[in-house]
Amino acid sequence: MKKVEDFKWVEGMSARELVDKISRIGFQGAEIGKAIQTIKNMKDANSKIYLTFTSNMVTSGLRGLFAQTIQKGMANVVITTVGGIEEDLMKSYGEEFLLGSFNADDVQLKKDGLNRVGNVLIKNESYQKFENIIKEQLETLYAKKKEWTPSEMFKEIGLTLKDEDSILYQAAKNNVPIFCPAITDGAFGFHLYLFQQEHSGFKIDVVKEFENVLLSTDQNEKKGLISLGGGVSKHHAILSCLLNGGMDFVVYLTTARAYSGSLSGATTQEAKSWGKIKGDGDAAMVIGDVSIIFPLIMSQVFEGI
Amino acid sequence: MKKVEDFKWVEGMSARELVDKISRIGFQGAEIGKAIQTIKNMKDANSKIYLTFTSNMVTSGLRGLFAQTIQKGMANVVITTVGGIEEDLMKSYGEEFLLGSFNADDVQLKKDGLNRVGNVLIKNESYQKFENIIKEQLETLYAKKKEWTPSEMFKEIGLTLKDEDSILYQAAKNNVPIFCPAITDGAFGFHLYLFQQEHSGFKIDVVKEFENVLLSTDQNEKKGLISLGGGVSKHHAILSCLLNGGMDFVVYLTTARAYSGSLSGATTQEAKSWGKIKGDGDAAMVIGDVSIIFPLIMSQVFEGI
Amino acid sequence: MKKVEDFKWVEGMSARELVDKISRIGFQGAEIGKAIQTIKNMKDANSKIYLTFTSNMVTSGLRGLFAQTIQKGMANVVITTVGGIEEDLMKSYGEEFLLGSFNADDVQLKKDGLNRVGNVLIKNESYQKFENIIKEQLETLYAKKKEWTPSEMFKEIGLTLKDEDSILYQAAKNNVPIFCPAITDGAFGFHLYLFQQEHSGFKIDVVKEFENVLLSTDQNEKKGLISLGGGVSKHHAILSCLLNGGMDFVVYLTTARAYSGSLSGATTQEAKSWGKIKGDGDAAMVIGDVSIIFPLIMSQVFEGI
Amino acid sequence: MKKVEDFKWVEGMSARELVDKISRIGFQGAEIGKAIQTIKNMKDANSKIYLTFTSNMVTSGLRGLFAQTIQKGMANVVITTVGGIEEDLMKSYGEEFLLGSFNADDVQLKKDGLNRVGNVLIKNESYQKFENIIKEQLETLYAKKKEWTPSEMFKEIGLTLKDEDSILYQAAKNNVPIFCPAITDGAFGFHLYLFQQEHSGFKIDVVKEFENVLLSTDQNEKKGLISLGGGVSKHHAILSCLLNGGMDFVVYLTTARAYSGSLSGATTQEAKSWGKIKGDGDAAMVIGDVSIIFPLIMSQVFEGI
Repeated sequence: MKKVEDFKWVEGMSARELVDKISRIGFQGAEIGKAIQTIKNMKDANSKIYLTFTSNMVTSGLRGLFAQTIQKGMANVVITTVGGIEEDLMKSYGEEFLLGSFNADDVQLKKDGLNRVGNVLIKNESYQKFENIIKEQLETLYAKKKEWTPSEMFKEIGLTLKDEDSILYQAAKNNVPIFCPAITDGAFGFHLYLFQQEHSGFKIDVVKEFENVLLSTDQNEKKGLISLGGGVSKHHAILSCLLNGGMDFVVYLTTARAYSGSLSGATTQEAKSWGKIKGDGDAAMVIGDVSIIFPLIMSQVFEGI
Repeated sequence: MKKVEDFKWVEGMSARELVDKISRIGFQGAEIGKAIQTIKNMKDANSKIYLTFTSNMVTSGLRGLFAQTIQKGMANVVITTVGGIEEDLMKSYGEEFLLGSFNADDVQLKKDGLNRVGNVLIKNESYQKFENIIKEQLETLYAKKKEWTPSEMFKEIGLTLKDEDSILYQAAKNNVPIFCPAITDGAFGFHLYLFQQEHSGFKIDVVKEFENVLLSTDQNEKKGLISLGGGVSKHHAILSCLLNGGMDFVVYLTTARAYSGSLSGATTQEAKSWGKIKGDGDAAMVIGDVSIIFPLIMSQVFEGI
Repeated sequence: MKKVEDFKWVEGMSARELVDKISRIGFQGAEIGKAIQTIKNMKDANSKIYLTFTSNMVTSGLRGLFAQTIQKGMANVVITTVGGIEEDLMKSYGEEFLLGSFNADDVQLKKDGLNRVGNVLIKNESYQKFENIIKEQLETLYAKKKEWTPSEMFKEIGLTLKDEDSILYQAAKNNVPIFCPAITDGAFGFHLYLFQQEHSGFKIDVVKEFENVLLSTDQNEKKGLISLGGGVSKHHAILSCLLNGGMDFVVYLTTARAYSGSLSGATTQEAKSWGKIKGDGDAAMVIGDVSIIFPLIMSQVFEGI
Repeated sequence: MKKVEDFKWVEGMSARELVDKISRIGFQGAEIGKAIQTIKNMKDANSKIYLTFTSNMVTSGLRGLFAQTIQKGMANVVITTVGGIEEDLMKSYGEEFLLGSFNADDVQLKKDGLNRVGNVLIKNESYQKFENIIKEQLETLYAKKKEWTPSEMFKEIGLTLKDEDSILYQAAKNNVPIFCPAITDGAFGFHLYLFQQEHSGFKIDVVKEFENVLLSTDQNEKKGLISLGGGVSKHHAILSCLLNGGMDFVVYLTTARAYSGSLSGATTQEAKSWGKIKGDGDAAMVIGDVSIIFPLIMSQVFEGI
C-alpha cells in the first residue's frame, strides 16, 4: 500500500509536480490520482472514450479544455445538454461571459440585462446573437435536407466554425459525434420550433439518433467513460455502454451525493449491480467542483501523452 | 417577525400538528413552512402549476403521491425524465421494488439479478416486463397514427392503465400533459428505436412537442412551479414559464448546491436575474431528500384544501 | 426483503401514520425507519444512551425536544458544545429567538442588533442577559467550592432553572451528566475568564472531567449513541464508548459527507475499522437537516414507549 | 468586470500558470482566485493571521504544508483539535499513514489493526507509539511545573521535535501559539487523565488559556482568518477576533453547507450580522475538499512572497 506523503510547496515547481504532490495526499487528493491513472488506462487499452458534461461547465470556461480533450483524441463521443451547445456557438461568434459574484443583487442584474449562472454572468445580447446564428445555420441545413438527427446537425454546424477552442468545431473536425438527448431543452429548442412553423417537413428525428448512440461502440470494443456532473448526459452514456456490454473504465467527477438515489450522485459501486461497469472494471470517483478538478486531472493526463 | 418555538412531542398528535410544529423551528423546518405557504398561495391565485421530478423519485415510492397530487388538481403540467415513466408503467402492471441497503454488495446483487438505485432494488424481470408492455402499447399507438409527440403518447398509454396510483393514468384522466424532454434516454428510447426499425414512418416529433410545452401556459396566466430535484425537468419547466413571462410562485426542493453553477442547485435568487421569477414573486427553497420533505409538505397542503 | 410502498396521503392521519408511511419508501425515508428501529433496539437492550448535538440545534428550537428526550429516559449522557448551553440558559430566563431568512441583509441586521444563525436571529440583548445570568450563577458556585468540572457546574446551574423545557434542568433533575469538551469556546468561556481574574483559585478541571466521561459507562454495559451533527460532541461520545469496548447501537444524523475525511461525515462503516462499533452492532445513518429528521424519528419512538 | 477565460492546457506549464488559469474560470475556480488575493491582502496589511484546521487535514498529508505556512510567516496563531496534535507527534517520531480506499472492508481492516479515516489508514502501532511519546513528554513537563495551559505545553513539546515538517516544531520555533479548545477530546485527553491520576497537582488550566487566546490580538491590529473546515477551531478563532473588534480579512474553505445553520457551513455574509467581519471586510469562501484546494491556494501565495 502507498504511504501518505506530506505536501510541501517547492518554488517554481511545474504543474505536473503540483498535481503529482496533490495525488499523494489523502481524501480527494488521492482520488484525483486514481482518476488520472484510470484515464491513462482507458487510453492505453485503446478504449472508445465517452466524455459527458453539463451545460454550466461550458459556461464556466472549461469549453477550451473540452475542445482540447477532443482534439487530442481523449474523447471519442461527447454527450451533453443543449445549453452548452448554445454557449459554444455564442463564444465561437465572439461573445464573452463575465465573472460576477455568487452573492450578486439579482434584481439589479435583471435591470442590467445580465443573467447569472453561479458567479458567471451572461448578457442578454449574447442570447440575441444566438438567435441570429441559429436562424442562419438552420436555413443552411434545411437547404441540404429536411430531416436531421441532432448529431448530424451539430457536425454540419461545427464544420462552419473554424474556432480551435470550439467544442462543435473540434468534434466535427475529428469525427467525434455530439449527442444531446434533450435537444429541445433550451433556446435552441425554441428556435427549432419557430423554424419548423415556417419550414414544412423540417424534422428532428431523435429515435433515429438512438441508432447512432447505440452504434457508437460495440460489445468487443473497450469502453471508457469520463462523466463530469450528472443528469441525462451521464445517464445516456451509461445507457449506450450498458447496451454494449458495460464499461471497462469509469471516472465520475461530481458534486452530487448518493443519499437521495439520483443517478447524478450514484457511485461506481452501484453501477456494478447494473452491469454498467464490468465486474473487474477500473473506476474512480472524485467529489468536487469540476471547474477545479478536471483541469488538474487533464493537465496531468496531457503531460503524459 | 415570528418567534422560534421549541418543538415538543404530544402523544397521539396528528400529522398536521407534527408538520405544523416542524415549520415553527429554525433552519429547514421553517423553510418547509414557507414552501407549504407558497404552494397554498399558488393554488389560491388559480395558477397553472408545473410539477417536475426526477426518475429516482418514482423509484422511491413517491409515485402514489405524485398521482394523488395530479388527481387533486395540485399539478396541471408534469415534466419528468423517461425512467420515471418506465417505472410507473412497470408498477401499473404489478411489478414491485424492494428495499435494500446503500452499502449492498453490488457484485452479489448483479448475480442475483437485482439493480440498485440507492437503497432500492429493481429486478431484471421488471425490465423484461417493461419490454412486453411497451411493445404492445406501441403497436396500439402505431395502429392509430404514425407520428406522435411524447405527451400524446403518454396520454394514450395512460388511459389504458386504470390504476389510481399511476402518474400516467391520473395525468391522462385529468388532462394533465406529461412532458419528457429526453424521451429516448432510457429503455423506452431503445424500444422506440427497435420499433421504428420495423415500422416505417414511425416518428416522435420533439420539435412539435415544444409547441405544446410553450402553449401549456400564457403571459396572462399566473404560473407556479413545484420543482423536485434538478436536471432537464426543472430546466424545461422554467424555460416554458420564462417564455411566457416568468413564474409567480416557485418551490424548489433539492439536494444540489449552488456552488458549482448547476441549474439543479441554482437558487430562487439566481432565477430573478433571468426573469424566471418575477421581481415580486413568491419563492421557497428546501434543501434535503425529497422522499422525506415532499410528503411532509403535501400532507399539510392536502389537509388544507 | 421489504417492498417499497407507494406513499399516499390519508385525510386526518396521525403523526404516527405519516412517519410510518415515510419509512416505507426508498432513500432517506427508509433510513429514518432504520434509525427509529435502532433507537428502539438500544432502549430495549437497556443501553446507556449517549445523545450528542451541536449548538445550532438548540438555536433551531430542538431544545424542547432534547429536554423531553432526557426526561423520557431516552438520553442518559449528553455531550454538546457550549453555545447550546448558553442558549438553553437564555431561553430559560425568557429570551426568545426570531425566524428570519437565509438571504437576509446582514449589514442591516448588524445595525438592528440581530445576529444571524442560518434563518434564526438572536438579539444582542439576549447575550447581555446571558452575561448577567452567568455572573450570578458563577458567584453561587464559587461560594460552594473553588474547583469544578464542567458537568458538576451544569448540574448545579440546571437545578436552579425550574424550566421543564430546559436541557440543563431536565439533565440535572434526571441525573444525566452534560459533557462539554470545549467549555471555553463561547461567551461562557469569556465569562469564566473574567470571573477567574477576580476570584482567586477558581479553576475548571477538564482533565478530571475526563474521568467522569470515561466512567459514564463500562465494558459490560450495552452502549448506544444518537449523534446529531458532528464536531467534538460526536467525537467525544465515540471516544468514551471506544475506551469502554465500543458501541452496540449507533444512529448518526448528519448533513456532512464522508469524502473529505471528517469525523462529522464519517460513516458507520468506517466506525467498524476502529472498533467504535462492535462487529455485529446495529447502525443507521440518515442524511439531512436534523431540524426535520430528529422530530420525525423521536415522535415515532415516543409513541412506542 | 473580468471576463471568463477558456482554460487551455499548455505543455510544461508551471504550477503558477496552472492555478492562475483555474482562477480565471467560473464557479469555484474564480473563488480560488479571490481567496488567493484575500490572503495576499491580509499579509500586505500586516495582519495577525489565524489559521484553523481540523484533525483530519493533518491525517491527509497537509501537515507539511501547515508547517511551511507557519514557517513562512503566513500563520501567526494556529487553532485546531487535538487529534491533529497527536498525529503531528506520531509523524515526528517516524510513524507513517497509508493510502487505502473509501470503499474498504472495515471489518477486515479491524482484524488487520488498521483504522480508517476516509481513504487514509492509521496503524494501531501508531497509537501505541503515541502513548510512549506522550507519557515521556508529560514527565518532562511535570518536572518543570505542575500547572499548564495547552499552548504552553505544545510549545515545550514542539521545541523538542527538531522536525522541519512538524506543525508543533515550526509553531514553537516561530513563536506561533497553538490553541486547542477541546484539549481532552482524543487519546491525548485520556493520557492527561491517566497522568493526573499518578501525579498530584497536575492541572491543565483552560480558563487561563482563554487569556492567551484573547490577547493573541488586539482592537488596533488588522486581523485575518484562514479557516479550513469548521468545528470548534473555526468558532474559536472567530470568537477571539470578535472580542477584539472583528476580522478585516477572511478566507473560509469548507465542504459544509449553510442550510442546517451550522457554523461550519456559515457564510462570510452571515458573519457580518455578528460583526465577526467588519462591514467593509475582504472575504472569500471556497467550497470543496481542502486536501486539493489549500495546496492550490498556498502554492500561488508562496510564489508571490
